[in-house]
Formats: sequence, structure tokens, C-alpha cells
Amino acid sequence: MKASRQSSPPWPSVAIVGVGLIGGSVGLALKARRLVGHVIGVGRTPASLAEAQQRGIVDETTTDLAAGVAQADLVVVASAVSSIGPLLDRIDEAARPGTLLTDAGSTKGSIVARWERRRKSRRCRFVGAHPIAGSHRRGPVAADAGLFEGRLTVVTPAKGTPESDASQVAEFWSALGSTVFLMPPKVHDRILAATSHAPHLIAAALAAATPADVTRFTAGGWRDSTRIAAGDPALWADILLDNAAEVARALTRVRRISDRLIEALEAGDRKTLLDLLQRAKERRDAVGS
Amino acid sequence: MKASRQSSPPWPSVAIVGVGLIGGSVGLALKARRLVGHVIGVGRTPASLAEAQQRGIVDETTTDLAAGVAQADLVVVASAVSSIGPLLDRIDEAARPGTLLTDAGSTKGSIVARWERRRKSRRCRFVGAHPIAGSHRRGPVAADAGLFEGRLTVVTPAKGTPESDASQVAEFWSALGSTVFLMPPKVHDRILAATSHAPHLIAAALAAATPADVTRFTAGGWRDSTRIAAGDPALWADILLDNAAEVARALTRVRRISDRLIEALEAGDRKTLLDLLQRAKERRDAVGS
Repeated sequence: MKASRQSSPPWPSVAIVGVGLIGGSVGLALKARRLVGHVIGVGRTPASLAEAQQRGIVDETTTDLAAGVAQADLVVVASAVSSIGPLLDRIDEAARPGTLLTDAGSTKGSIVARWERRRKSRRCRFVGAHPIAGSHRRGPVAADAGLFEGRLTVVTPAKGTPESDASQVAEFWSALGSTVFLMPPKVHDRILAATSHAPHLIAAALAAATPADVTRFTAGGWRDSTRIAAGDPALWADILLDNAAEVARALTRVRRISDRLIEALEAGDRKTLLDLLQRAKERRDAVGS
Repeated sequence: MKASRQSSPPWPSVAIVGVGLIGGSVGLALKARRLVGHVIGVGRTPASLAEAQQRGIVDETTTDLAAGVAQADLVVVASAVSSIGPLLDRIDEAARPGTLLTDAGSTKGSIVARWERRRKSRRCRFVGAHPIAGSHRRGPVAADAGLFEGRLTVVTPAKGTPESDASQVAEFWSALGSTVFLMPPKVHDRILAATSHAPHLIAAALAAATPADVTRFTAGGWRDSTRIAAGDPALWADILLDNAAEVARALTRVRRISDRLIEALEAGDRKTLLDLLQRAKERRDAVGS
């Protein structure tokens, strides 16, 4: 065991840009699994960087992006979706040539497309990723070394991404405990519209539509089905806007089913109602608690 | 302490018709709080009655409804919504005159109206109730003596219900640990359409609309927001059909908000999107985890 501790870790120096729930969990998982030599936390607010350092998530912090990424072998951008593209541009200029970059954004199409549009002049290597391990909780205080264990991470190489770059990024997310799926960015965005973005919008609509004076008559059902509506509005506005077309398409599918449910209700058609509820139960039961 | 154990309990003999999650929890709570002398479990299947007896939920079981309620001071009907009205009719004929009856159905309008239509010829006294303490789990195995603690029970007297009957039923549900609200049956059904029935239908539509081959790319958000779709389809078909008009009205309100969300998405209107997500978050945060 001593030998493995003393051998050099796979990632000598990792910079994490945005040390919130996801970035913080990346730091904790890297350290818990002895995958890293040195972690640099890059952020905008000294207070949350100080909290990240106190929690042992990072070894060193800075609000200076260029300085923070200058010595890194790998840079993980774990900030709000709308900020990732511009940050990658700046990191590409500040990091050493050949540095591997990845991100943890909930959408992939626009982030990857922006990188690819200037691929020829890029100095670094970037492969997008999305660890599907969110929470409505936020900040380094919610970070968890086990956040990625048993979860999936989608890694989204572009057509022009060298296979070796995709493999290295896949290995990184896999080393944190997640199972990696590779797929094109657009496929990712179509799938996540159905499994995450549309559900968020529906939960928000349900929460906002419930009159404040009756929320005391809610039980576990309402609380479960609206829980994600407590997520950060600004983060989610970015995600939904960035994937608007696919989200609208996924919502149309949900609406088609809810229209059939309402028709069955209004017609007193118990058989159709039962069939649809049964189909919903089977789909839900297949996923587990 | 010995004196209080030996003094006669408030309800010498209680019959519970339907010993599932709710009925079983009534039995356990009655016993844990020493509110009852003797509990008779009435059910259709000997196997689940045997399970209820083994768990200490009931002292005696029978599949013979008339025999089971003949000696009871209080009868609690905790069966599927569509069965409650017919059961109350039969109990009214079999129980001693003046026996107090209550139920635990998730809808109240039709159950109370059916009782009231023949009020003049009734032998017993009935006041409807709905303990808002469901679960997607089922059966006596899920029963819990603390299920009603900190929860609300809505008690729904009809216009002609004597105040003393309403008070006695309110006291019963309050003694099990819940906070009691009294309101007319139709008001209950309107409120629960918004806080429970419409959310169920939405969760079912969301679960059924998610393609089976992408459910592996779900995380906590989808799992939370579809959890109630795992509930029993037959029980929920009854509830939804019985409250169809109010459920449709509640869904219209949700749809009005989701239409505005989609319009904002498609127009790239970040401000409106943020406002609606913020309103949803405030509504959700006010309820707690």
C-alpha cells in the first residue's frame, strides 16, 4: 500500500474552476481516491474558495483564472452552463499547450460547438462531459467525495476530437467512480431534455401553480414531485435556454400523455386511465427508488 | 402510569375495515397511544389479515364485515375510494345504532354525498375524513404508528352533520397525532386536486413519457418528480375519476404556467423564465424538504 501511495498520482496537478457542489465533489473524490498531487481551486468569491480550502477540497485557491490554470495538467470547469464556453476560451489561452480540459455542464451541444468552431487555433485539448449527479443543494458545503459513485457521466467528443483525448477524459470521470457513456453532444442534449430538463420545468410549473394558501395540505407526493423546483433559478434558466428546442420537444411528449389522461378522466374511461397509470408505474419501478 | 393503563380507553372497541398502509397505521397508532381496548381488523384476504395480526395491528380479524363491525364503538373504513360508499351502506346496517363511522378516503365529495342522500334512514353516524399521510408503499407491512404525527387530517362534515359527531371524529384523528382541519367535502376535493391528485397525474405522464432506453440517464430530479407514479394504478384511477372535474381544473392552472415557461424558452426571454423559476422556488422552499 505504501508503494502505491508514494508512486506519482495519475494527475499531478488539477485545476477546478468553480468549486461548488460538482467542482467540490471532484476535488474531494480526487483526493479520497489518491488520484491527484495538487488541486488548485479557481473561483470568483474568496469566501467560497476559503470554505473549499477549509473542507480540504483544494490545496490552493485563486480568483485569477490565468494563474490558476497555468501549471495544471488537467482543468475541470464546473461552473454555470452559460459561463463554460467563455471560460474555456480564456483557459485555452492561459494554460500550457496540450493541457487537457473538460467540463461538467448540464448541456453539451453549444459548449462543444463553440470550442469546435475554433478548433484549428486551439492550444489545449477539450472534451466535454456531464456527470449526471446533481442535487438541489449548492456550494462547496454540499460537496461529497462519493457523489459520482454508481452514477453515469456522459462524455461527448466532437467529430474532430482525437480518440486518445476522449479516452483520457473518459478515464478521468471513470476514476472518480462514475460509469462513462460516450455519445455525440446533440444526443446527450436530447436525452437530458427528457430525463432532467423537462422534469425540472414541469416541477417548477407545478410548484408555482399551487396556491400558497393550500401548500399546507401537501404530503410526500407534492414534496417529491416539486423538490427540484428548489434548485437555483439562474443556473436552471441557463440550462433550459441553452437546450430550449429539445426541452420543448420532450415537453410535447409529456403533454401528449397528460392529454390522454385528462381525456380518459373526463370520459370516465377507467380502462385507458388504468393502462396509462400502469405504464407509468412500470417505467418508474424499473428505475428504483 | 398503572392507573392510566387500567382506566378504560377512549375507544373500547374499534373496527378497521381495510388493514393496509392507512388502516394498519390507525391500528398501530391506537395501540401505541393506548387509545383503544380491542381492535378488530376486517378485510377481504386472510393472508393480509394474518399479517396485520402478526404485526400487532389488530387483536382479532374477520372477512365477515357484518360480524366485524357488530360490536364496535367506532368503525374506520380505510379501503379504496370506490369501495368506501358501498361499505358504509353495509356497515350502517350491521353496526349497533348510533355507532360512529369515519373513513380515510382521498376524496370526500362523492362519499359524503352518498351518505347524506339517505341520512334520514341511517342508523349510524358518519363523518368523512382524509389523513394526508400517504405513501407509494402499500399494505400492513408499511404500516407505521407514527404515520399521522405532524400531519394534517381533513375532517369533512356535511351541512346536516351534528357538531358533536364532527367533534368526536376530529378528536379521534387528532388523538392519532395529526392536526385536524374541518372543511366542507367539496373544498377538500378542490384543494387536494391541486396538492395531490394533479401532481400524481403529472408524475405519471412524466414517467410514461420517458423512453425506456433513456431512463438510465436519470438522476435524483427525475426520480423525485416521478416517485408517486409508482403508486397503485387501481387505487389512483379511482381517486382521479372520483375527482375528475377538480383535477382537470388544477391541471389547467399548471399548464398555464408551463405554457408561459415554454413561451419564454422559445423566445429566449431569460427574465420571464427567471421570474417564474424564482416564484416556483419560493413556493417550494416555503414547504420544506
